[in-house]
Amino acid sequence: MRGKGLAPMSVLTAADSSPTASVDLGPAAALSCRECGERFPLSPIFACASCFGPLEIAYDLPSGDPEGLRRRIEAGPKSIWRYAPLLPVPADVATKPNLNPGLTPLVKADRLAAELGVTGPLYVKDDSGNPTHSFKDRVVAQALEAARAFGFTTLSCSSTGNLAGAVGAAAARAGLRSCVFIPHDLEQAKVVMAAVYGGQVVAIDGSYDDVNRFCSELIGDPLGEGWGFVNVNLRPYYAEGSKTLAFEICEQLGWRLPDQLVIPIASGSQLTKIDKGLKELIATGLVEDRPYRIFGAQAEGCSPVSRAFRDGHDVVRPVKPNTIAKSLAIGNPADGPYVLDIARRTGGAVADVTDAQVVDAIGLLARTEGIFTETAGGVTLGVTRKLIEEGALDPSLTTVVINSGDGLKTLDAVASAAGPTATIPPSLDAFRQAGLA
Amino acid sequence: MRGKGLAPMSVLTAADSSPTASVDLGPAAALSCRECGERFPLSPIFACASCFGPLEIAYDLPSGDPEGLRRRIEAGPKSIWRYAPLLPVPADVATKPNLNPGLTPLVKADRLAAELGVTGPLYVKDDSGNPTHSFKDRVVAQALEAARAFGFTTLSCSSTGNLAGAVGAAAARAGLRSCVFIPHDLEQAKVVMAAVYGGQVVAIDGSYDDVNRFCSELIGDPLGEGWGFVNVNLRPYYAEGSKTLAFEICEQLGWRLPDQLVIPIASGSQLTKIDKGLKELIATGLVEDRPYRIFGAQAEGCSPVSRAFRDGHDVVRPVKPNTIAKSLAIGNPADGPYVLDIARRTGGAVADVTDAQVVDAIGLLARTEGIFTETAGGVTLGVTRKLIEEGALDPSLTTVVINSGDGLKTLDAVASAAGPTATIPPSLDAFRQAGLA
Repeated sequence: MRGKGLAPMSVLTAADSSPTASVDLGPAAALSCRECGERFPLSPIFACASCFGPLEIAYDLPSGDPEGLRRRIEAGPKSIWRYAPLLPVPADVATKPNLNPGLTPLVKADRLAAELGVTGPLYVKDDSGNPTHSFKDRVVAQALEAARAFGFTTLSCSSTGNLAGAVGAAAARAGLRSCVFIPHDLEQAKVVMAAVYGGQVVAIDGSYDDVNRFCSELIGDPLGEGWGFVNVNLRPYYAEGSKTLAFEICEQLGWRLPDQLVIPIASGSQLTKIDKGLKELIATGLVEDRPYRIFGAQAEGCSPVSRAFRDGHDVVRPVKPNTIAKSLAIGNPADGPYVLDIARRTGGAVADVTDAQVVDAIGLLARTEGIFTETAGGVTLGVTRKLIEEGALDPSLTTVVINSGDGLKTLDAVASAAGPTATIPPSLDAFRQAGLA
Repeated sequence: MRGKGLAPMSVLTAADSSPTASVDLGPAAALSCRECGERFPLSPIFACASCFGPLEIAYDLPSGDPEGLRRRIEAGPKSIWRYAPLLPVPADVATKPNLNPGLTPLVKADRLAAELGVTGPLYVKDDSGNPTHSFKDRVVAQALEAARAFGFTTLSCSSTGNLAGAVGAAAARAGLRSCVFIPHDLEQAKVVMAAVYGGQVVAIDGSYDDVNRFCSELIGDPLGEGWGFVNVNLRPYYAEGSKTLAFEICEQLGWRLPDQLVIPIASGSQLTKIDKGLKELIATGLVEDRPYRIFGAQAEGCSPVSRAFRDGHDVVRPVKPNTIAKSLAIGNPADGPYVLDIARRTGGAVADVTDAQVVDAIGLLARTEGIFTETAGGVTLGVTRKLIEEGALDPSLTTVVINSGDGLKTLDAVASAAGPTATIPPSLDAFRQAGLA
C-alpha cells in the first residue's frame, strides 16, 4: 500500500495496513481509535475498521528522565522540531527540507489585560509568525513527514485558503508535487497564496462541501494514487501538529501549565489536540500536573458547538455557516463532541460572538498590542472578552489566547474601518486646521 | 531639548545636544559624523553641525572576551535583543514592551541553488517572519528605544507603506501615540496595515517626495514638539537596526562571515549598516576576519546606484522611480555613495533587473523554497541570478540573499500569474478530462 491513496472503504481491511508497519515516525507506535481503542499499524488511514471512529496516534513516549528530556528540547532547533521526541516524525526530521514552523512568540499582553480588566498574566500565542502566517504550517509539517514515510509523491488538501497556501509552500520546499482543491469563489489573496508556490490549484465549481466530497471520491479512485491529502488520509498525523502549540506555551511559561486557554474552533481539532498535548506533557513529567481550563471560541454565524454547550447537549447539530470568520466556518465540526467533553471536563466553556464583535476585537488587539490578527483571532479574543464579562474566565489567573492567523489574509473585515484619519495637502496650515497635532 | 522635535537647522547648534548627554542607550557612546568624524552627544539629531554629513552611532564595544560575549548572546532572548551589547539600546531593553523582532530563519536554499547552478551553500535570510512581516521592525525597534530615551511621546514617519505599519504596531505595543504620513494613493493593504493599529494616519495629497518635505517642515515647527520621526530625527538610531541582519546571519552560520551577500537598495542604509555590523563583529572578535563581498540590488525602473556603479561614477544621479518594487523606489538614495564605496571596496557589485525579472524571481523563490516574497525580494533574487550568470557572483562560495519583506503586501505583482490551474465541476470525469492527475 506504500504510496497509494486509499478508498474510504479500503481502510477497513486489515491487510491494507501491514506493509507500512516498518515506517519510522519516531515515537509514534500505532494508530488508535478514539472511540473503541482498537490499534492499527501506522498507515495512511483515518477511520477505525471496527467502529468507524476517528484514529489518532498512540506513542511510546520518553519516560523516567523529564529533566534530561527538557534539556534535550531546550537545546533543540528553534522550531517545532525541538519537540520531535513527542511527535510522529523521525528523529532526523530537522535535517529534511521543510518550512520549520513554530516557536512563535508568546506575547505578554499587559495593555490588552488592562483594557479587559484582567489582573492575572494574559498572553497571546501569536501564530501569525509562522512561515505562511497561520497555525496550518504546524499541522502540514507533520503531514509532510507522514507523506514522505508512506512514499506519497503528491501533497493535497481541500481548503478554504489558509491550508492551501501552507500545503503549496511545504510541498515546494520539500520538492513534492502539490495539487490543492478550493471553492471557485475564494478571495484573491487566498487564491494567490494557493497558486504562487507553483503547484496545481483546482477551483471546484461548487461549495466547500462539494470540494470535500470530491476529495473523498478522488482518494478512492486510481486517479488519486500516490496522493497524500493532509486533512483526509493523513489526518491522524496532521492533527498532531496542533499539540506543538501546547508544548510551546508551556515551555515559554517556564515549563508550567497555564490556568486557562481560549482556542478557536473550526473542526475542533486544534482544541482537542492542545488538550492532548498538555496531557502528554504531564505524562512525561515535563510539567507538573495541575488543573487547567479550556475554552472554545466560535463566531455566532457558525456556532454549532457553542449552541450545544449552552443547551447542555452532547450532540452537535450541523449548521450552514454565515460569518466573516471563514477559516472557522465549518458547519459540521468533526471534533465537536470531543470539544464539548473537554470544555465540560476541565471546567471551561464554549461561547460565540457576532461578526461586529469580531471586528471590534481585531481592532482591540491591534491597538493594544500591535498584533494584526485575522478574523479567527478576532473570534477568539472577542469570546475571551465575553467570557471575562460573564465571569466564566477568572481574570486573576494565567490565561493564554490563541491567535491562529494573520490580518493580511482577511483585509476585507477591517478595510472599511481602517482608513486614513485625514487627507490633507502638504502644508503645516492644513495639518494645523485638521486638528491632528 | 528633551522631548522636542528639532528644526533641520537647529541640529547645527551644539547647545541643543547637551541636555541628553546622560541618556542610557547601552554601548552607544556618541554620534559621529560619517564624513568628518566629529562627535556629538547622543541626541535626536541627524546631520553634522560642521559639515552637514550624516551622523551615525559610535560605540564603546565590549572587548577582550569574545567567547564570553558569544555565550552571553546565545543565552539571550530569541530576538534582536540578544545583541543588545552591540546596539544603541539600554541593557534591559527586552523587559520593555516592544515587538521583539528578529531571529528570522536563515533558510538553506538547496532547491533554489540547484536551479541557479550554485554549488556552494546558498541561504535566504527570510525577514518576512518579523512581526509586521518586513525588516522594518528591526529598525523601528531601535528608534522606539531612542524615542523613549529622549522622552518623545509620539512616534512618526514618512512611509510608502511597510514602515507605517511597523511604526503603528510598535507604538501600539509600547503605548505611545503614533501619527504616520503616507501618500494619498497607496494600495489598500498598506493603508489598512498603517491604520489598523489605531494611530493617526495622515494621507498627503501629493507624492512621496511631498510627504517627506512636509515631515521635515513639521519637525521644525512647534506642532512637531515631542515627535520622534523614526526615519528623520531618530535616523542614526533607527538605521542601526539593520546591523542585526549581519549579526543573525553570522551567528546562524556558526559565527562565521558569509563569502557573499546580496542586499536590496532603497536608501542604501540597510546595505551600509550590514557592512557596519560585519565590521563590528570582526572588531569584537565574534567572527574571524576574512574577506567578504557585498552586492547591491535595484529595480531597473529605479536604479541610480546601479547605473553609477556601471559607469564608474562616485556620484549618484537622482532618478524618477517607475517600478513595481515600490518599497525600493527611492530615486535619490541618501546612502548611495556609501553603497558604491562598499561594493567596490569589497569586490562586490551593484546591478538591476527589469520588473518582468522581478516577477519571475518571486515565482522562482516560491516554487523552489516555499517562500513568498514581496517585490523587493524579487529584485534581490533577480539580481542574484543575473550576477551569477554574468560571473560576478562566485557560485562555489557561501552566499546569503536578503528577503526583506512579504508577498502578501504586494499581491498585485503576481496576481495575474497566480490563478487556479483549472476550474472544474466536482466530478472525477471532469478532473480526468482536465488532465491534471
